[in-house]
Amino acid sequence: MVSESKVTVRYAETDQMGITHHSVYPIWYELARTDLIKKLGITYTQMEQSGVITPLVDLHCRYIGVSRYEDELIVKAWVQGLTAARIEFGYEVCRAGESKPINTGSTMHAWVDAKTFRPMNMKKRFPQWFEGIRQMMEENSKPCPKTY
Amino acid sequence: MVSESKVTVRYAETDQMGITHHSVYPIWYELARTDLIKKLGITYTQMEQSGVITPLVDLHCRYIGVSRYEDELIVKAWVQGLTAARIEFGYEVCRAGESKPINTGSTMHAWVDAKTFRPMNMKKRFPQWFEGIRQMMEENSKPCPKTY
Amino acid sequence: MVSESKVTVRYAETDQMGITHHSVYPIWYELARTDLIKKLGITYTQMEQSGVITPLVDLHCRYIGVSRYEDELIVKAWVQGLTAARIEFGYEVCRAGESKPINTGSTMHAWVDAKTFRPMNMKKRFPQWFEGIRQMMEENSKPCPKTY
Amino acid sequence: MVSESKVTVRYAETDQMGITHHSVYPIWYELARTDLIKKLGITYTQMEQSGVITPLVDLHCRYIGVSRYEDELIVKAWVQGLTAARIEFGYEVCRAGESKPINTGSTMHAWVDAKTFRPMNMKKRFPQWFEGIRQMMEENSKPCPKTY
Repeated sequence: MVSESKVTVRYAETDQMGITHHSVYPIWYELARTDLIKKLGITYTQMEQSGVITPLVDLHCRYIGVSRYEDELIVKAWVQGLTAARIEFGYEVCRAGESKPINTGSTMHAWVDAKTFRPMNMKKRFPQWFEGIRQMMEENSKPCPKTY
Repeated sequence: MVSESKVTVRYAETDQMGITHHSVYPIWYELARTDLIKKLGITYTQMEQSGVITPLVDLHCRYIGVSRYEDELIVKAWVQGLTAARIEFGYEVCRAGESKPINTGSTMHAWVDAKTFRPMNMKKRFPQWFEGIRQMMEENSKPCPKTY
Repeated sequence: MVSESKVTVRYAETDQMGITHHSVYPIWYELARTDLIKKLGITYTQMEQSGVITPLVDLHCRYIGVSRYEDELIVKAWVQGLTAARIEFGYEVCRAGESKPINTGSTMHAWVDAKTFRPMNMKKRFPQWFEGIRQMMEENSKPCPKTY
Repeated sequence: MVSESKVTVRYAETDQMGITHHSVYPIWYELARTDLIKKLGITYTQMEQSGVITPLVDLHCRYIGVSRYEDELIVKAWVQGLTAARIEFGYEVCRAGESKPINTGSTMHAWVDAKTFRPMNMKKRFPQWFEGIRQMMEENSKPCPKTY
Protein backbone atom coordinates (compact mmCIF):
# COMPACT_ATOMS: atom_id res chain seq x y z
CA MET A 1 0.00 0.00 0.00
CA VAL A 2 1.24 3.42 -0.97
CA SER A 3 -0.34 6.43 0.75
CA GLU A 4 -0.57 9.85 -0.87
CA SER A 5 -0.53 13.08 1.14
CA LYS A 6 -1.08 16.51 -0.33
CA VAL A 7 1.11 19.42 0.75
CA THR A 8 1.26 23.02 -0.41
CA VAL A 9 4.64 24.72 -0.01
CA ARG A 10 4.53 27.28 2.81
CA TYR A 11 6.29 30.62 2.56
CA ALA A 12 8.34 29.84 5.66
CA GLU A 13 9.59 26.69 3.93
CA THR A 14 11.34 28.67 1.19
CA ASP A 15 14.89 30.00 1.44
CA GLN A 16 16.77 32.82 -0.21
CA MET A 17 17.38 30.71 -3.33
CA GLY A 18 13.61 31.03 -3.82
CA ILE A 19 13.05 27.28 -3.46
CA THR A 20 11.86 24.96 -0.70
CA HIS A 21 14.70 24.48 1.78
CA HIS A 22 16.03 20.94 1.67
CA SER A 23 15.43 20.36 5.40
CA VAL A 24 11.67 20.53 4.76
CA TYR A 25 11.44 17.30 2.75
CA PRO A 26 12.12 15.08 5.81
CA ILE A 27 9.23 16.89 7.54
CA TRP A 28 6.96 16.09 4.61
CA TYR A 29 8.11 12.47 4.73
CA GLU A 30 7.05 12.46 8.36
CA LEU A 31 3.52 13.65 7.69
CA ALA A 32 3.27 11.14 4.85
CA ARG A 33 4.17 8.22 7.10
CA THR A 34 1.69 9.54 9.69
CA ASP A 35 -0.98 9.25 6.99
CA LEU A 36 0.26 5.81 5.93
CA ILE A 37 0.09 4.43 9.47
CA LYS A 38 -3.45 5.79 9.84
CA LYS A 39 -4.51 3.49 7.03
CA LEU A 40 -3.75 0.59 9.37
CA GLY A 41 -6.49 1.86 11.66
CA ILE A 42 -4.03 3.11 14.27
CA THR A 43 -2.29 6.42 14.74
CA TYR A 44 1.25 7.30 15.67
CA THR A 45 -0.22 9.05 18.69
CA GLN A 46 -1.78 5.76 19.85
CA MET A 47 1.48 3.95 19.22
CA GLU A 48 3.38 6.46 21.35
CA GLN A 49 0.74 6.28 24.07
CA SER A 50 1.16 2.50 24.06
CA GLY A 51 4.86 2.96 24.74
CA VAL A 52 6.46 2.65 21.29
CA ILE A 53 8.51 5.43 19.77
CA THR A 54 10.31 5.27 16.44
CA PRO A 55 13.36 7.55 16.35
CA LEU A 56 15.23 7.81 13.07
CA VAL A 57 18.46 5.95 12.63
CA ASP A 58 18.99 6.80 8.99
CA LEU A 59 17.74 9.37 6.50
CA HIS A 60 18.41 9.60 2.80
CA CYS A 61 17.05 12.23 0.41
CA ARG A 62 17.68 12.69 -3.28
CA TYR A 63 16.78 16.10 -4.71
CA ILE A 64 15.92 15.74 -8.39
CA GLY A 65 13.99 18.94 -8.99
CA VAL A 66 12.94 21.96 -6.98
CA SER A 67 9.63 23.11 -5.54
CA ARG A 68 8.52 26.64 -4.82
CA TYR A 69 6.08 28.60 -2.66
CA GLU A 70 2.44 27.65 -3.25
CA ASP A 71 3.37 24.57 -5.31
CA GLU A 72 0.95 21.70 -4.74
CA LEU A 73 2.73 18.43 -4.18
CA ILE A 74 1.89 14.80 -3.49
CA VAL A 75 4.07 12.90 -1.03
CA LYS A 76 3.86 9.13 -1.45
CA ALA A 77 4.95 6.82 1.37
CA TRP A 78 5.19 3.08 1.76
CA VAL A 79 6.87 0.49 4.00
CA GLN A 80 9.89 -0.98 2.29
CA GLY A 81 11.50 -2.96 5.08
CA LEU A 82 10.43 -4.46 8.40
CA THR A 83 12.14 -6.47 11.11
CA ALA A 84 11.44 -6.99 14.80
CA ALA A 85 13.92 -4.17 15.51
CA ARG A 86 13.46 -1.72 12.64
CA ILE A 87 11.12 -0.33 10.00
CA GLU A 88 12.05 1.40 6.75
CA PHE A 89 9.84 3.72 4.75
CA GLY A 90 10.26 4.89 1.17
CA TYR A 91 9.03 8.23 -0.23
CA GLU A 92 8.44 10.06 -3.45
CA VAL A 93 7.48 13.69 -3.84
CA CYS A 94 5.74 14.65 -7.12
CA ARG A 95 3.98 17.75 -8.36
CA ALA A 96 0.21 17.25 -8.28
CA GLY A 97 -0.81 15.64 -11.56
CA GLU A 98 2.71 14.54 -12.52
CA SER A 99 4.28 11.13 -12.04
CA LYS A 100 7.99 11.97 -12.25
CA PRO A 101 9.27 12.61 -8.73
CA ILE A 102 11.14 15.79 -7.84
CA ASN A 103 12.45 14.09 -4.70
CA THR A 104 12.84 10.53 -3.43
CA GLY A 105 13.96 9.32 -0.04
CA SER A 106 13.95 6.75 2.68
CA THR A 107 14.00 6.69 6.47
CA MET A 108 15.01 3.85 8.77
CA HIS A 109 13.57 3.85 12.30
CA ALA A 110 14.23 1.77 15.39
CA TRP A 111 11.39 0.35 17.48
CA VAL A 112 12.15 1.86 20.86
CA ASP A 113 10.53 1.66 24.28
CA ALA A 114 9.24 5.14 25.13
CA LYS A 115 10.14 4.86 28.82
CA THR A 116 13.59 3.33 28.68
CA PHE A 117 14.65 4.63 25.22
CA ARG A 118 15.95 1.08 24.64
CA PRO A 119 15.39 -1.09 21.55
CA MET A 120 12.20 -3.11 21.62
CA ASN A 121 11.11 -6.29 19.84
CA MET A 122 8.05 -5.01 18.01
CA LYS A 123 7.08 -8.43 16.74
CA LYS A 124 6.79 -9.80 20.27
CA ARG A 125 5.44 -6.74 22.02
CA PHE A 126 2.75 -5.72 19.52
CA PRO A 127 2.28 -8.77 17.26
CA GLN A 128 -0.97 -7.51 15.75
CA TRP A 129 0.42 -4.14 14.70
CA PHE A 130 3.54 -5.84 13.41
CA GLU A 131 1.46 -8.23 11.33
CA GLY A 132 -0.67 -5.36 10.02
CA ILE A 133 2.41 -3.47 8.89
CA ARG A 134 3.87 -6.60 7.34
CA GLN A 135 0.74 -7.13 5.29
CA MET A 136 0.68 -3.48 4.28
CA MET A 137 4.22 -3.90 3.00
CA GLU A 138 3.35 -7.00 1.01
CA GLU A 139 0.40 -5.30 -0.63
CA ASN A 140 2.77 -2.93 -2.36
CA SER A 141 1.62 -3.23 -5.93
CA LYS A 142 4.14 -4.40 -8.46
CA PRO A 143 5.83 -2.58 -9.98
CA CYS A 144 6.05 -0.56 -6.80
CA PRO A 145 7.90 2.75 -6.59
CA LYS A 146 11.58 2.11 -6.76
CA THR A 147 13.14 2.29 -3.35
CA TYR A 148 16.02 4.61 -3.10
CA MET B 1 20.06 42.13 34.48
CA VAL B 2 20.05 41.98 30.72
CA SER B 3 21.61 38.94 29.05
CA GLU B 4 23.15 39.06 25.59
CA SER B 5 23.19 36.07 23.27
CA LYS B 6 24.97 35.95 19.95
CA VAL B 7 23.31 34.40 16.92
CA THR B 8 24.38 34.12 13.31
CA VAL B 9 21.55 33.93 10.76
CA ARG B 10 21.31 30.40 9.32
CA TYR B 11 20.56 29.77 5.66
CA ALA B 12 17.46 27.76 6.57
CA GLU B 13 16.20 30.79 8.48
CA THR B 14 15.95 32.91 5.33
CA ASP B 15 12.93 32.99 3.04
CA GLN B 16 12.42 33.87 -0.61
CA MET B 17 12.41 37.60 0.19
CA GLY B 18 16.10 37.05 1.02
CA ILE B 19 15.61 38.00 4.68
CA THR B 20 15.23 36.12 7.95
CA HIS B 21 11.71 34.73 8.15
CA HIS B 22 9.70 36.47 10.86
CA SER B 23 8.88 33.20 12.65
CA VAL B 24 12.56 32.83 13.56
CA TYR B 25 12.69 35.80 15.95
CA PRO B 26 10.55 34.04 18.62
CA ILE B 27 13.02 31.14 18.46
CA TRP B 28 15.89 33.56 19.08
CA TYR B 29 13.95 35.07 21.97
CA GLU B 30 13.71 31.57 23.38
CA LEU B 31 17.43 30.90 23.30
CA ALA B 32 18.03 34.33 24.81
CA ARG B 33 15.78 33.62 27.79
CA THR B 34 17.49 30.23 28.16
CA ASP B 35 20.76 32.13 28.54
CA LEU B 36 19.19 34.67 30.89
CA ILE B 37 17.84 31.96 33.22
CA LYS B 38 21.27 30.30 33.28
CA LYS B 39 22.63 33.44 34.87
CA LEU B 40 20.51 32.60 37.91
CA GLY B 41 22.54 29.45 38.37
CA ILE B 42 19.74 27.21 37.17
CA THR B 43 18.74 25.94 33.76
CA TYR B 44 15.39 25.58 32.02
CA THR B 45 16.15 21.87 31.83
CA GLN B 46 16.43 21.71 35.64
CA MET B 47 13.24 23.71 36.00
CA GLU B 48 11.38 21.30 33.73
CA GLN B 49 12.84 18.31 35.54
CA SER B 50 11.58 19.83 38.81
CA GLY B 51 8.09 19.91 37.36
CA VAL B 52 7.71 23.50 36.11
CA ILE B 53 6.97 24.30 32.49
CA THR B 54 6.39 27.75 31.07
CA PRO B 55 4.15 27.68 27.99
CA LEU B 56 3.60 30.97 26.19
CA VAL B 57 0.36 32.81 26.66
CA ASP B 58 1.28 35.90 24.68
CA LEU B 59 3.86 36.88 22.06
CA HIS B 60 4.52 40.27 20.56
CA CYS B 61 7.17 41.11 17.97
CA ARG B 62 7.94 44.38 16.26
CA TYR B 63 10.04 44.17 13.10
CA ILE B 64 11.95 47.41 12.62
CA GLY B 65 14.66 46.30 10.23
CA VAL B 66 15.66 43.13 8.46
CA SER B 67 18.46 40.64 8.95
CA ARG B 68 20.05 38.40 6.34
CA TYR B 69 22.00 35.17 6.03
CA GLU B 70 25.33 35.20 7.94
CA ASP B 71 24.44 38.44 9.78
CA GLU B 72 25.79 38.44 13.33
CA LEU B 73 23.22 39.59 15.83
CA ILE B 74 22.91 40.13 19.56
CA VAL B 75 19.66 39.14 21.27
CA LYS B 76 19.13 40.89 24.60
CA ALA B 77 16.67 39.47 27.12
CA TRP B 78 15.43 40.57 30.51
CA VAL B 79 12.57 39.92 32.92
CA GLN B 80 10.03 42.72 32.74
CA GLY B 81 7.16 41.31 34.76
CA LEU B 82 6.71 38.66 37.45
CA THR B 83 3.76 37.37 39.46
CA ALA B 84 3.06 34.08 41.23
CA ALA B 85 1.22 32.97 38.08
CA ARG B 86 3.16 34.52 35.22
CA ILE B 87 6.48 35.82 33.97
CA GLU B 88 7.12 38.32 31.19
CA PHE B 89 10.34 38.74 29.25
CA GLY B 90 11.43 41.62 27.02
CA TYR B 91 13.78 41.32 24.05
CA GLU B 92 15.82 43.39 21.66
CA VAL B 93 17.69 42.16 18.61
CA CYS B 94 20.57 44.33 17.37
CA ARG B 95 23.32 43.88 14.83
CA ALA B 96 26.62 43.12 16.54
CA GLY B 97 28.27 46.44 17.37
CA GLU B 98 25.11 48.51 16.92
CA SER B 99 22.72 49.72 19.59
CA LYS B 100 19.62 50.46 17.56
CA PRO B 101 17.42 47.36 17.55
CA ILE B 102 16.14 45.79 14.34
CA ASN B 103 13.50 43.94 16.34
CA THR B 104 11.90 44.20 19.77
CA GLY B 105 9.46 41.90 21.47
CA SER B 106 7.98 40.38 24.56
CA THR B 107 6.66 37.03 25.70
CA MET B 108 4.32 36.25 28.56
CA HIS B 109 4.47 32.77 30.08
CA ALA B 110 2.35 30.92 32.60
CA TRP B 111 3.94 28.92 35.42
CA VAL B 112 2.45 25.49 34.79
CA ASP B 113 2.75 22.11 36.50
CA ALA B 114 4.46 19.75 34.06
CA LYS B 115 2.36 16.75 35.09
CA THR B 116 -1.10 18.26 35.25
CA PHE B 117 -0.64 21.10 32.75
CA ARG B 118 -2.47 23.26 35.33
CA PRO B 119 -1.42 26.72 36.55
CA MET B 120 1.01 26.68 39.45
CA ASN B 121 1.86 29.21 42.15
CA MET B 122 5.57 29.69 41.49
CA LYS B 123 6.08 31.87 44.54
CA LYS B 124 4.86 29.14 46.89
CA ARG B 125 6.21 26.12 45.07
CA PHE B 126 9.73 27.36 44.34
CA PRO B 127 10.22 30.43 46.56
CA GLN B 128 13.99 30.56 46.08
CA TRP B 129 13.84 30.57 42.30
CA PHE B 130 11.02 33.07 42.41
CA GLU B 131 13.07 35.37 44.64
CA GLY B 132 16.11 34.97 42.39
CA ILE B 133 14.10 35.97 39.34
CA ARG B 134 12.55 38.89 41.21
CA GLN B 135 15.99 40.21 42.16
CA MET B 136 17.20 39.72 38.60
CA MET B 137 14.31 41.87 37.42
CA GLU B 138 15.06 44.62 39.92
CA GLU B 139 18.68 44.75 38.89
CA ASN B 140 17.63 45.96 35.47
CA SER B 141 19.80 48.99 35.10
CA LYS B 142 18.07 52.28 34.54
CA PRO B 143 17.51 53.35 31.89
CA CYS B 144 16.73 49.79 30.92
CA PRO B 145 15.71 48.82 27.41
CA LYS B 146 12.25 50.08 26.71
CA THR B 147 9.75 47.32 27.06
CA TYR B 148 7.53 46.86 24.10
CA MET C 1 -14.70 37.52 4.03
CA VAL C 2 -13.10 35.06 6.39
CA SER C 3 -11.11 32.21 4.89
CA GLU C 4 -10.68 28.85 6.60
CA SER C 5 -7.61 26.69 6.14
CA LYS C 6 -7.21 23.20 7.51
CA VAL C 7 -3.95 22.14 9.13
CA THR C 8 -2.92 18.94 10.87
CA VAL C 9 -0.19 19.30 13.49
CA ARG C 10 3.08 17.81 12.23
CA TYR C 11 5.40 15.84 14.50
CA ALA C 12 8.24 18.28 13.80
CA GLU C 13 5.99 21.09 15.05
CA THR C 14 5.82 19.65 18.56
CA ASP C 15 8.35 20.37 21.28
CA GLN C 16 9.43 18.56 24.42
CA MET C 17 6.41 19.86 26.34
CA GLY C 18 4.43 17.59 24.00
CA ILE C 19 2.56 20.52 22.44
CA THR C 20 2.85 22.52 19.24
CA HIS C 21 5.75 24.95 19.58
CA HIS C 22 4.53 28.54 19.75
CA SER C 23 6.66 29.62 16.78
CA VAL C 24 4.51 27.45 14.50
CA TYR C 25 1.34 29.54 14.82
CA PRO C 26 2.77 32.47 12.81
CA ILE C 27 3.58 29.95 10.05
CA TRP C 28 -0.03 28.76 10.07
CA TYR C 29 -1.21 32.38 9.95
CA GLU C 30 0.92 32.75 6.85
CA LEU C 31 -0.63 29.83 5.01
CA ALA C 32 -4.06 31.09 6.04
CA ARG C 33 -3.46 34.53 4.52
CA THR C 34 -2.08 32.83 1.39
CA ASP C 35 -5.46 31.08 1.11
CA LEU C 36 -7.36 34.29 1.85
CA ILE C 37 -5.55 36.21 -0.88
CA LYS C 38 -6.27 33.41 -3.37
CA LYS C 39 -9.96 34.11 -2.89
CA LEU C 40 -9.33 37.47 -4.57
CA GLY C 41 -8.34 35.61 -7.70
CA ILE C 42 -4.67 36.43 -7.29
CA THR C 43 -1.85 34.66 -5.51
CA TYR C 44 0.93 35.91 -3.30
CA THR C 45 3.31 34.48 -5.88
CA GLN C 46 1.77 36.72 -8.57
CA MET C 47 1.95 39.71 -6.24
CA GLU C 48 5.65 39.08 -5.60
CA GLN C 49 6.31 38.58 -9.30
CA SER C 50 4.61 41.94 -9.93
CA GLY C 51 7.08 43.57 -7.57
CA VAL C 52 5.17 43.78 -4.28
CA ILE C 53 6.43 42.11 -1.12
CA THR C 54 4.77 42.32 2.28
CA PRO C 55 7.29 41.93 5.11
CA LEU C 56 5.91 41.84 8.64
CA VAL C 57 6.18 44.89 10.81
CA ASP C 58 4.20 43.56 13.74
CA LEU C 59 3.08 40.18 15.07
CA HIS C 60 0.83 39.44 17.97
CA CYS C 61 -0.25 35.98 19.16
CA ARG C 62 -2.39 34.99 22.10
CA TYR C 63 -2.17 31.35 23.18
CA ILE C 64 -5.42 30.31 24.85
CA GLY C 65 -5.19 26.55 24.61
CA VAL C 66 -2.70 24.00 23.30
CA SER C 67 -2.66 21.76 20.26
CA ARG C 68 -0.88 18.45 19.87
CA TYR C 69 0.51 16.15 17.20
CA GLU C 70 -2.12 14.97 14.68
CA ASP C 71 -4.71 17.49 15.93
CA GLU C 72 -6.87 18.80 13.10
CA LEU C 73 -7.26 22.56 13.23
CA ILE C 74 -8.96 25.32 11.29
CA VAL C 75 -7.09 28.60 10.82
CA LYS C 76 -9.38 31.52 10.02
CA ALA C 77 -7.96 34.66 8.42
CA TRP C 78 -9.41 38.00 7.42
CA VAL C 79 -8.28 41.52 6.57
CA GLN C 80 -8.83 43.85 9.52
CA GLY C 81 -7.02 46.96 8.41
CA LEU C 82 -5.87 48.50 5.13
CA THR C 83 -4.08 51.69 4.13
CA ALA C 84 -1.98 52.67 1.13
CA ALA C 85 1.09 51.74 3.17
CA ARG C 86 0.00 48.77 5.28
CA ILE C 87 -2.32 45.81 5.62
CA GLU C 88 -3.39 44.04 8.79
CA PHE C 89 -4.73 40.51 9.04
CA GLY C 90 -6.55 38.86 11.94
CA TYR C 91 -6.49 35.14 12.75
CA GLU C 92 -8.20 32.54 14.85
CA VAL C 93 -7.14 28.93 15.28
CA CYS C 94 -9.85 26.47 16.37
CA ARG C 95 -10.04 22.71 16.64
CA ALA C 96 -12.02 21.26 13.74
CA GLY C 97 -15.68 21.29 14.71
CA GLU C 98 -15.25 23.73 17.59
CA SER C 99 -15.86 27.46 17.60
CA LYS C 100 -13.84 28.56 20.62
CA PRO C 101 -10.36 29.52 19.45
CA ILE C 102 -7.25 28.03 21.03
CA ASN C 103 -5.21 30.87 19.55
CA THR C 104 -5.86 34.33 18.14
CA GLY C 105 -3.48 36.73 16.50
CA SER C 106 -2.78 39.53 14.09
CA THR C 107 -0.04 40.54 11.69
CA MET C 108 0.70 43.95 10.25
CA HIS C 109 2.58 44.12 6.94
CA ALA C 110 4.11 46.93 4.94
CA TRP C 111 3.58 47.20 1.18
CA VAL C 112 7.16 47.16 -0.05
CA ASP C 113 8.77 47.35 -3.48
CA ALA C 114 10.52 44.02 -4.11
CA LYS C 115 13.47 45.62 -5.89
CA THR C 116 14.24 48.56 -3.65
CA PHE C 117 12.89 47.17 -0.34
CA ARG C 118 11.31 50.62 0.10
CA PRO C 119 7.72 51.39 1.14
CA MET C 120 5.26 51.50 -1.72
CA ASN C 121 1.87 53.17 -2.17
CA MET C 122 -0.28 50.12 -2.89
CA LYS C 123 -3.36 52.16 -3.63
CA LYS C 124 -1.60 54.02 -6.44
CA ARG C 125 0.56 51.23 -7.78
CA PHE C 126 -2.02 48.43 -7.88
CA PRO C 127 -5.41 50.17 -7.54
CA GLN C 128 -7.42 47.15 -8.63
CA TRP C 129 -5.86 44.78 -6.10
CA PHE C 130 -6.17 47.44 -3.44
CA GLU C 131 -9.86 47.86 -4.20
CA GLY C 132 -10.38 44.10 -4.20
CA ILE C 133 -8.81 43.79 -0.78
CA ARG C 134 -10.81 46.73 0.52
CA GLN C 135 -14.05 45.11 -0.58
CA MET C 136 -12.98 41.81 0.91
CA MET C 137 -12.45 43.59 4.22
CA GLU C 138 -15.85 45.25 4.11
CA GLU C 139 -17.58 41.96 3.43
CA ASN C 140 -16.53 40.75 6.84
CA SER C 141 -19.81 39.58 8.24
CA LYS C 142 -20.97 41.22 11.40
CA PRO C 143 -20.42 40.16 14.05
CA CYS C 144 -17.01 39.29 12.67
CA PRO C 145 -14.38 37.49 14.70
CA LYS C 146 -13.06 39.79 17.35
CA THR C 147 -9.80 41.27 16.30
CA TYR C 148 -7.02 40.84 18.75
CA MET D 1 40.87 20.97 6.86
CA VAL D 2 38.04 20.16 9.25
CA SER D 3 36.05 23.06 10.70
CA GLU D 4 34.34 22.88 14.07
CA SER D 5 31.17 24.83 14.86
CA LYS D 6 29.54 24.99 18.25
CA VAL D 7 25.77 24.70 18.59
CA THR D 8 23.51 24.57 21.61
CA VAL D 9 20.23 22.71 21.14
CA ARG D 10 17.31 25.16 21.02
CA TYR D 11 13.97 24.41 22.66
CA ALA D 12 12.18 24.77 19.33
CA GLU D 13 14.48 22.08 17.93
CA THR D 14 13.12 19.42 20.30
CA ASP D 15 10.07 17.30 19.59
CA GLN D 16 7.62 15.41 21.78
CA MET D 17 10.05 12.51 22.16
CA GLY D 18 12.11 15.00 24.19
CA ILE D 19 15.01 14.86 21.73
CA THR D 20 16.29 17.05 18.89
CA HIS D 21 14.08 16.50 15.85
CA HIS D 22 15.97 14.71 13.09
CA SER D 23 15.26 17.47 10.54
CA VAL D 24 17.48 19.84 12.55
CA TYR D 25 20.75 18.03 11.83
CA PRO D 26 20.80 19.08 8.14
CA ILE D 27 20.40 22.68 9.33
CA TRP D 28 23.41 22.26 11.61
CA TYR D 29 25.36 20.74 8.72
CA GLU D 30 24.53 23.89 6.78
CA LEU D 31 25.90 26.28 9.38
CA ALA D 32 28.98 24.08 9.68
CA ARG D 33 29.74 24.28 5.96
CA THR D 34 29.13 28.04 6.12
CA ASP D 35 31.89 28.18 8.73
CA LEU D 36 34.13 25.86 6.71
CA ILE D 37 33.84 28.01 3.57
CA LYS D 38 34.68 31.11 5.63
CA LYS D 39 38.06 29.57 6.37
CA LEU D 40 38.84 29.94 2.66
CA GLY D 41 38.57 33.70 3.08
CA ILE D 42 35.25 33.87 1.26
CA THR D 43 31.65 33.60 2.42
CA TYR D 44 28.65 31.80 1.00
CA THR D 45 27.02 35.21 0.75
CA GLN D 46 29.83 36.41 -1.52
CA MET D 47 29.59 33.26 -3.58
CA GLU D 48 25.86 33.77 -4.08
CA GLN D 49 26.38 37.44 -4.92
CA SER D 50 28.91 36.34 -7.54
CA GLY D 51 26.26 34.19 -9.14
CA VAL D 52 26.94 30.71 -7.74
CA ILE D 53 24.36 28.80 -5.76
CA THR D 54 24.77 25.29 -4.41
CA PRO D 55 21.43 23.47 -4.09
CA LEU D 56 21.50 20.03 -2.53
CA VAL D 57 21.22 16.99 -4.73
CA ASP D 58 21.74 14.40 -2.02
CA LEU D 59 21.54 14.23 1.76
CA HIS D 60 22.45 11.36 4.03
CA CYS D 61 22.24 11.35 7.84
CA ARG D 62 22.99 8.58 10.29
CA TYR D 63 21.59 9.03 13.79
CA ILE D 64 23.76 7.17 16.29
CA GLY D 65 22.75 8.85 19.52
CA VAL D 66 20.35 11.55 20.60
CA SER D 67 20.79 15.14 21.72
CA ARG D 68 18.54 17.15 23.98
CA TYR D 69 17.62 20.75 24.80
CA GLU D 70 20.59 22.84 26.01
CA ASP D 71 23.13 20.17 24.98
CA GLU D 72 26.34 21.70 23.69
CA LEU D 73 27.53 20.08 20.49
CA ILE D 74 30.36 20.38 18.02
CA VAL D 75 29.58 20.03 14.32
CA LYS D 76 32.60 19.11 12.22
CA ALA D 77 32.57 19.69 8.47
CA TRP D 78 35.02 18.99 5.67
CA VAL D 79 35.08 18.69 1.88
CA GLN D 80 35.16 15.06 0.83
CA GLY D 81 34.57 15.31 -2.89
CA LEU D 82 34.98 17.94 -5.60
CA THR D 83 34.42 18.04 -9.35
CA ALA D 84 33.73 20.85 -11.81
CA ALA D 85 30.00 20.09 -11.40
CA ARG D 86 29.63 19.08 -7.76
CA ILE D 87 30.93 19.32 -4.22
CA GLU D 88 30.45 16.90 -1.36
CA PHE D 89 30.78 17.69 2.32
CA GLY D 90 31.10 15.27 5.25
CA TYR D 91 29.90 15.98 8.80
CA GLU D 92 30.16 14.66 12.32
CA VAL D 93 28.21 15.88 15.34
CA CYS D 94 29.76 15.19 18.75
CA ARG D 95 28.98 16.31 22.26
CA ALA D 96 31.40 19.01 23.38
CA GLY D 97 34.43 17.28 24.87
CA GLU D 98 33.66 13.87 23.38
CA SER D 99 35.07 12.32 20.22
CA LYS D 100 32.49 9.65 19.44
CA PRO D 101 29.90 11.15 17.09
CA ILE D 102 26.19 11.01 17.84
CA ASN D 103 25.46 11.75 14.19
CA THR D 104 27.34 11.57 10.88
CA GLY D 105 26.27 12.69 7.45
CA SER D 106 27.06 13.97 4.03
CA THR D 107 25.61 16.39 1.51
CA MET D 108 26.20 16.57 -2.22
CA HIS D 109 25.64 19.91 -3.94
CA ALA D 110 25.54 21.02 -7.56
CA TRP D 111 27.36 24.16 -8.72
CA VAL D 112 24.49 26.12 -10.22
CA ASP D 113 24.19 29.49 -11.94
CA ALA D 114 22.05 31.73 -9.71
CA LYS D 115 20.31 33.40 -12.63
CA THR D 116 19.54 30.47 -14.89
CA PHE D 117 19.36 27.72 -12.24
CA ARG D 118 21.45 25.66 -14.68
CA PRO D 119 24.54 23.59 -13.87
CA MET D 120 27.78 25.55 -13.97
CA ASN D 121 31.41 24.52 -14.47
CA MET D 122 32.92 25.81 -11.24
CA LYS D 123 36.47 24.99 -12.27
CA LYS D 124 36.23 27.23 -15.34
CA ARG D 125 34.07 29.98 -13.93
CA PHE D 126 35.81 30.53 -10.59
CA PRO D 127 39.18 28.77 -10.91
CA GLN D 128 40.67 30.43 -7.83
CA TRP D 129 37.87 29.42 -5.52
CA PHE D 130 37.87 25.95 -7.03
CA GLU D 131 41.59 25.62 -6.40
CA GLY D 132 41.19 26.91 -2.84
CA ILE D 133 38.54 24.31 -2.11
CA ARG D 134 40.62 21.58 -3.70
CA GLN D 135 43.57 22.44 -1.49
CA MET D 136 41.32 22.57 1.55
CA MET D 137 40.16 19.06 0.73
CA GLU D 138 43.69 17.76 0.33
CA GLU D 139 44.74 19.19 3.66
CA ASN D 140 42.37 16.81 5.40
CA SER D 141 44.65 15.25 7.94
CA LYS D 142 45.03 11.52 7.87
CA PRO D 143 43.37 9.68 9.41
CA CYS D 144 40.53 12.02 8.56
CA PRO D 145 37.00 11.51 9.83
CA LYS D 146 35.46 8.57 8.09
CA THR D 147 33.14 9.72 5.38
CA TYR D 148 29.72 8.27 5.58
